[in-house]
Amino acid sequence: MRMRKKKWADPWLAEHSDYIYENPVEYKGRWRELFGCEILHVEIGTGKGDYLNNMARMYPSEGWVGIEKDRSAAAVAARKAIEEENPDLHNKRMIVNRAEDMCEWFEEGEIDIIHLNFSDPWPKKHTHKRRLSSKSFLDMYDRLLNENGRIRMKTDNKDLFEDSVCYLNENGWILVEFSVDYRRTNHDEDAVTEYEQRFLDLNQPIYQLCAVRRKADALMVE
Amino acid sequence: MRMRKKKWADPWLAEHSDYIYENPVEYKGRWRELFGCEILHVEIGTGKGDYLNNMARMYPSEGWVGIEKDRSAAAVAARKAIEEENPDLHNKRMIVNRAEDMCEWFEEGEIDIIHLNFSDPWPKKHTHKRRLSSKSFLDMYDRLLNENGRIRMKTDNKDLFEDSVCYLNENGWILVEFSVDYRRTNHDEDAVTEYEQRFLDLNQPIYQLCAVRRKADALMVE
Repeated sequence: MRMRKKKWADPWLAEHSDYIYENPVEYKGRWRELFGCEILHVEIGTGKGDYLNNMARMYPSEGWVGIEKDRSAAAVAARKAIEEENPDLHNKRMIVNRAEDMCEWFEEGEIDIIHLNFSDPWPKKHTHKRRLSSKSFLDMYDRLLNENGRIRMKTDNKDLFEDSVCYLNENGWILVEFSVDYRRTNHDEDAVTEYEQRFLDLNQPIYQLCAVRRKADALMVE
Repeated sequence: MRMRKKKWADPWLAEHSDYIYENPVEYKGRWRELFGCEILHVEIGTGKGDYLNNMARMYPSEGWVGIEKDRSAAAVAARKAIEEENPDLHNKRMIVNRAEDMCEWFEEGEIDIIHLNFSDPWPKKHTHKRRLSSKSFLDMYDRLLNENGRIRMKTDNKDLFEDSVCYLNENGWILVEFSVDYRRTNHDEDAVTEYEQRFLDLNQPIYQLCAVRRKADALMVE
């Protein structure tokens, strides 16, 4: 969801280019080194950053990169990270830019887990190709994830969830976790996003899945 | 769900062995011939038969076989078919027996569509293997369905649905239709079962999917 434009965002972003990048080609293939971590997470559509900031705090030995194209939202998320919630920035960074360009910032097979939280559902049919779970994005994730890499997705949107399950299955991904009401069981291991809390307060179900790339050798076993 | 035992069921079943069979080995490989149809449907867990009877009426040129192990429920379903709802029996039959024995009554590749409607969720972990969507059943369906065959499933039960999606994906099936709230859009082409109506009256979502066997050649295209 778009937020109102914040006038302070642009100058603030320029001042904090050590934490929030626009085009971090210099880190391509080097994110693990930067963080000193074994596991690299990327959240696409970080919004106001609650998920990224909380998860980075909960998993301090893993690396977290958030991508958010809305400059105002990205600035809010980054400011929270820097000034408020978690001044320890050793294991997280943000990129303010379009996810379509991810291949410029990450090496093939560099990422372990891609998180899609409450992504824009792009409800109109002619805009479905912009969904972060559509085929062109899945093809990109396939290149960027390592061989055991996975996509984790949460949403409140039925249409987006239903279609995403079919996109994943059609494009050779298999679901290894799947829930039509994720928060009815305890998931303390996974932070609640700002949207998620809103839907939980309304007693609406959260849909969740985790998908892995189908392996060619899995077929040979059959 | 078990229904109260009906005293009239056993003698009635014996009297109607031209419509409801116990062990129809003589029709193995011959169901299409019996019905004069191109497409053969099998519903496992027919219950009181509303779905089978309505679908057989809606699709008179397709063949419909219902399997129900509960003799009282099977007798109610068959009596409805014979005496009440649809005296035209040309395109349907019932089998009162356990689905585990299906391979004795159907030839490999004979079935087009297997329907699982509101199947017993077998909630306790040690009973999950009895679920009609568990691995041993999926393996059996794989043999019995033809190469374009599909499994269609509806349920109100979250746990059964979630686990079934994973069973299917783990065992080489892909989802080609999928809904977390099936009746929010119009599906006049698909009859409402007696349980389904109950959950619709309570405004609870119906979960639905359609799965096909993953083809080996689909992988080669990649």
